[in-house]
Amino acid sequence: MSRTVYLNGGYMAEESAKVSIFDRGFLLADAVYEVTSVLNGKLLDFDGHMERLKRSLGELDFRFEVNRDELLKVQLELVRLNEIDEGIVYLQITRGVCDRSFKFPDAGVQPTILMFTQHRTALNPADPETGIRVISTEDLRWGRRDIKTVQLLFPSMAKMQAVRAGADDAFLVQDGEVTEGTAYNAYIVTKNGTIVTRQLSTDILHGITRATMLRYAREAQMQVEERPFTIEEAKSAAEAFITSASNYVMPVVEIDGVKLGDGRPGPVSRRLRELYIEESLKTAI
Amino acid sequence: MSRTVYLNGGYMAEESAKVSIFDRGFLLADAVYEVTSVLNGKLLDFDGHMERLKRSLGELDFRFEVNRDELLKVQLELVRLNEIDEGIVYLQITRGVCDRSFKFPDAGVQPTILMFTQHRTALNPADPETGIRVISTEDLRWGRRDIKTVQLLFPSMAKMQAVRAGADDAFLVQDGEVTEGTAYNAYIVTKNGTIVTRQLSTDILHGITRATMLRYAREAQMQVEERPFTIEEAKSAAEAFITSASNYVMPVVEIDGVKLGDGRPGPVSRRLRELYIEESLKTAI
Repeated sequence: MSRTVYLNGGYMAEESAKVSIFDRGFLLADAVYEVTSVLNGKLLDFDGHMERLKRSLGELDFRFEVNRDELLKVQLELVRLNEIDEGIVYLQITRGVCDRSFKFPDAGVQPTILMFTQHRTALNPADPETGIRVISTEDLRWGRRDIKTVQLLFPSMAKMQAVRAGADDAFLVQDGEVTEGTAYNAYIVTKNGTIVTRQLSTDILHGITRATMLRYAREAQMQVEERPFTIEEAKSAAEAFITSASNYVMPVVEIDGVKLGDGRPGPVSRRLRELYIEESLKTAI
Repeated sequence: MSRTVYLNGGYMAEESAKVSIFDRGFLLADAVYEVTSVLNGKLLDFDGHMERLKRSLGELDFRFEVNRDELLKVQLELVRLNEIDEGIVYLQITRGVCDRSFKFPDAGVQPTILMFTQHRTALNPADPETGIRVISTEDLRWGRRDIKTVQLLFPSMAKMQAVRAGADDAFLVQDGEVTEGTAYNAYIVTKNGTIVTRQLSTDILHGITRATMLRYAREAQMQVEERPFTIEEAKSAAEAFITSASNYVMPVVEIDGVKLGDGRPGPVSRRLRELYIEESLKTAI
């Protein structure tokens, strides 16, 4: 079945959704994106994603005014048309179409905007009951990971490195310390039960799921420390897990072949996953 | 006038040249490119660009067999159809079209290939008689700059930073040392006439114009040192210049507001430009 997607104001079959080869998203990776979770047919954290989208656009001087209500209407319509019960809505905005140049285009050039959905089954998500196994690899991404751009070749390469090694995904490491994963924030749980995750900076994505999950954790009186941790500390931690819009909270059971605890999802990770899903659904739209 | 461009086996008007929004070049910057100079209607260093293209494709595990003769035929046909006397041919290959995933697609997915031309006038090149003025800015690109990918957002941002500062372009600096420029290799000429440029590594693009120009310089008995230089050394150098397919050899006359020498293109830069153009035309095809 073909999806219905949205491109520059219109809904169309995915086969018809095309952009110029001169789109700056295609020639120069001059584009930002957001991925919003759909659960029970509803959008999780939609306003958080809109706030981050505005920030990404602002950091890059895109001439695009985010109309929250209009974008919400399109996302809900795509969810309805494609009968998404569980999955995601992907949104991308590029600086538009013009002849290739490193200079930003003139004011008359309109940004390109598109959205499409994916069913959970198409996302090939991990099983939260078994957790995922990760490898570690050096983080070679650019220096502004706080801006959510489509410069995703390195994360894609790291994902493939993991798959070829028989693992599910990768933790990225800079100067011995874990920054984050290929498409998610990374956490460990210390033996005394403290949740540790790297503090926000230009080194990592400011995860929307991260912010929401940490708020729920603190409200539930769990201990949280925002600081860097080394890959060695991670391997000897009680638990590890990741957060992202498409994975919610996902336990990590093995790092570089080293099992964490008994090699099964730990109690803190499992509790956080339940807490995140339960609480997020209360405010889903 | 509309250009004729090439896309996936066919020639077409540029307005008709479109790719799927699911192209991995568009969603994940999973694409490589080459820019070949056209001078007097002929291609400079075509085989050098083909060799680098093969290397980029190989580093990224693209399933694309470079057919040198076929690509040459298309480039020459585009030059003819678009009446390019002086300009460039741009070539891009992406990993192809499939649903969005960090995993590389199955073997059945065909890469996307496209080529288009630009006249020299569209490139807005600098004037070699006056040279260019650059600013310096921190190099925030990813760690594999030896692979020529379309992850060009940072170079584009650096170019705009330069333009807003009233300059022409930017030198990128890492740990105090110049790596290269936004779209070219960077050089200084010391007061005793030695040409200095950073040695090849994953930190910089392995410039085709760089390799050819250095060969001509050595053949002409000029002194060349391949080593890092600091931005401070550059500001107190006798001359500076850049090389790229679209600029050949272009003098730099000012760095961060500091004039080099008398603020005009120096003799070594001017001689290298003449030498490069003269020698390259002998082997142009």
